[in-house]
Amino acid sequence: MLTNLTIALDMMGGDYGPRSSIPAAVRAVNANANLKLILCGNEQVIAKQLESLDSLSHPRLIIRHCNDVVTNACEPAVAVRSKKDSSMRVALDLVKSGEAQACVSSGNTGALFFMAHYVLKMLPGVKRPALISAVPTERKNPVYLLDLGANVHCDAQMLYQFGIMGSVVAGQALGCDNPKVSLLNIGAEDIKGHEEIKQAAQLMQQSELINYIGYSEGSDIFSGKADVIVCEGFVGNVALKTCEGIAKLIMKKFTRALEKHVVYKCMAFMLAPIIKKLYKRVNPDQYNGASLVGLRGIVVKSHGNASAKAFHAAIDEAVKEVERQLPDKIAAIFEKTHSKDTAVE
Amino acid sequence: MLTNLTIALDMMGGDYGPRSSIPAAVRAVNANANLKLILCGNEQVIAKQLESLDSLSHPRLIIRHCNDVVTNACEPAVAVRSKKDSSMRVALDLVKSGEAQACVSSGNTGALFFMAHYVLKMLPGVKRPALISAVPTERKNPVYLLDLGANVHCDAQMLYQFGIMGSVVAGQALGCDNPKVSLLNIGAEDIKGHEEIKQAAQLMQQSELINYIGYSEGSDIFSGKADVIVCEGFVGNVALKTCEGIAKLIMKKFTRALEKHVVYKCMAFMLAPIIKKLYKRVNPDQYNGASLVGLRGIVVKSHGNASAKAFHAAIDEAVKEVERQLPDKIAAIFEKTHSKDTAVE
Repeated sequence: MLTNLTIALDMMGGDYGPRSSIPAAVRAVNANANLKLILCGNEQVIAKQLESLDSLSHPRLIIRHCNDVVTNACEPAVAVRSKKDSSMRVALDLVKSGEAQACVSSGNTGALFFMAHYVLKMLPGVKRPALISAVPTERKNPVYLLDLGANVHCDAQMLYQFGIMGSVVAGQALGCDNPKVSLLNIGAEDIKGHEEIKQAAQLMQQSELINYIGYSEGSDIFSGKADVIVCEGFVGNVALKTCEGIAKLIMKKFTRALEKHVVYKCMAFMLAPIIKKLYKRVNPDQYNGASLVGLRGIVVKSHGNASAKAFHAAIDEAVKEVERQLPDKIAAIFEKTHSKDTAVE
Repeated sequence: MLTNLTIALDMMGGDYGPRSSIPAAVRAVNANANLKLILCGNEQVIAKQLESLDSLSHPRLIIRHCNDVVTNACEPAVAVRSKKDSSMRVALDLVKSGEAQACVSSGNTGALFFMAHYVLKMLPGVKRPALISAVPTERKNPVYLLDLGANVHCDAQMLYQFGIMGSVVAGQALGCDNPKVSLLNIGAEDIKGHEEIKQAAQLMQQSELINYIGYSEGSDIFSGKADVIVCEGFVGNVALKTCEGIAKLIMKKFTRALEKHVVYKCMAFMLAPIIKKLYKRVNPDQYNGASLVGLRGIVVKSHGNASAKAFHAAIDEAVKEVERQLPDKIAAIFEKTHSKDTAVE
C-alpha cells in the first residue's frame, strides 16, 4: 500500500455537485489514513459544506478555489478553450503537475474526456483514450467494458488498442495473466457486424498481446464468459445505461407485485434488505469508477448522478489505480509494441 | 376481427426449429378458430412432430414441403441467391403471392431481412425496412424500439423514416393519435451524439408527421417517457440483448440470495410464481413479435432461441398486424409525404 496518496477531486460536477462530492471526500479520508484529497471548486460552498460535516479543519482535506464550473451543456471544445479556472481543469492540472496522482470528476463526460486528453496527453502509441468500467456478471468476477462513451465512433485499430488496454486493467484488477477479450457484436457468427468490428477481430486474433475469444452479444455481457468486452463508445454507453434502466424497472415491478397481496406485503418488508443489496450489486452506480485509460495520468469518471457513496467508490477506484500504476503498465506494453513495429520497419 | 386469416410459418428456423415452432402452431390454431397456418419446412419432420401432438390431420394446419434450410451461419446474400427452396423463402413467397397475409420466422435475422426485402420489396418512398419490437416500461404501455438489427448503420433520413413508421406501429398498437417519438443518444443535451443523430433530430423536429420529444438515453427506454425510440440497428440490437442478459442476471442473483438463508428459502418457494411472472414481463422473449416494417407485406421475426410460447406470441403479433393493416397504413403516410415532396418540387 502506498503511504502518500494525493487525489484531486472536481467537487462541482455531476447532478448534485458538492452535496455528494463533499460527504464522499470526508468518508474517503476517514476510511484511509494515507489519503490526502485536494478539493477543487468554489471555496465558500465547499467550506460551508465541510463545516456542516465538522470537517473544515481536516488536515488531509485541502481546498483549492476555482472560479468556474464546466456545466453539462458545455461543448467539450469550449470547455478546453475557456474553462481554464474550472474545478475540472484545475483537478486535471494538479495531476499533470504531479501534485496529485489521480483525479476524480462526475462532470460532463465529453468535456472531461477532451480536457483530460488535452491536459495530460496520450501515452506513446495510443490512438485514443477510452472509458472503461467493471460490470457485474453471473460469476464472481466482473467484466470490464470499454469504450463507454469517450469515442462515439471507433475504427478497427482503436477497438484493437482498447482490447490491449482492457487486458491490462482486467489483468491487474482480477489478478490474472491472460484475461479473455471479446468484441461486442450483434451475432456470434463471423459474418455479423460492420467492417470495423470484423477488422478489429482479425487484429485481435493475430495479436500476442490479447487472449481473444471471439464475439459477444449484448446478452453475453453478464454471463462472465469474457473478462474484457470491447465496443465503440456510443454502443457501450447505451448498453451501460440500458442496464441501469432495466435494473430499476425490475426492482420497481417486483416491489409493486409484492405489494399487491397481503401475504407478500409482509414478505416485502423482510425482503427489502435483499432487494436493496441486489440492486446495488447490479447497478453500475456501485461499480462506479469508470476510468479513462490511455492517458499519461489517472482520471476516474464518476456517474453524473453519483450519490456520496458512489463518488466515494470512484475515489477508491482512483486509489487502486494509483497503487496498480496502470498508466505505467499500459505504457510498457505499447512501448514494446512500438519498438517491435520499429524493428520490423 | 378478420374471419379468414392465413399465416405462413418458417418451421425450420431458430435454435430449436420444429421443436418450438410446431407446438406453437398447434397452440395458435387451437386458440384462434379463424386462423389457418401454412407450415413451411421438411414434410417428414413436421408430420412426425404433428403426429406426436395428435394434430397431423388438423384441417387448419397445412404442410408445405421445402428441401432447404437457411442456417444461422448463412450469409444473407447467399441465402437470397441460392436458398430458393428454403422454409424461410417459401414462407415469404406465400406472402408475396397473396396465399398468406403474413409470415413468421425465428431464423437468421440478416438473411430474413435481405430475403424479405428482395421478395416483398419496399413500400414506395421507404429507404430501408426496420425491425421493431415492443419493450416493457414502468408504465402500462410498452415502448416501441427500432431498428433492432436490420440495418447495422443508419443515416439521418433512415432514422427519420423509422420515426414515422414507429409512430404508425405504436399509434395502432396503443390506440393513440400522436405517439411520442424520441431518438436514442448518449446524452440528453443537443450537443451529444454523432452527426446522423443530430440531423435526424432536426428532421423529426421539423416534421408534422412526428411528435418528436427529444433525445433519450439508454436508462430512459424503460421509463415510458416515449412511445417510440429510434436508433440504428447495431445499437438497438445490443440494447435489447443487454436487457435480456441483465434480466437473467438479476433473477439468478435474487434466487441465489434467497437460497442463502433458511427463512428466505421458504419464501423463495412462495415467491417463485411472482419471480417467474416478472421475468416474463421484462424479458423481451415475451414481447417476441419483432416485426419488419416498411415492406409490402407483414414479416414477424421471432427470437432465435424462441420457446414454443414465444413463437406462439410471434404468430399472435402477426395476426394483430394483419388486422391492423400496418403496411397499408404506413404506405398511406409515405404516399402523402411523397406527393407533398412532388408538389414542392
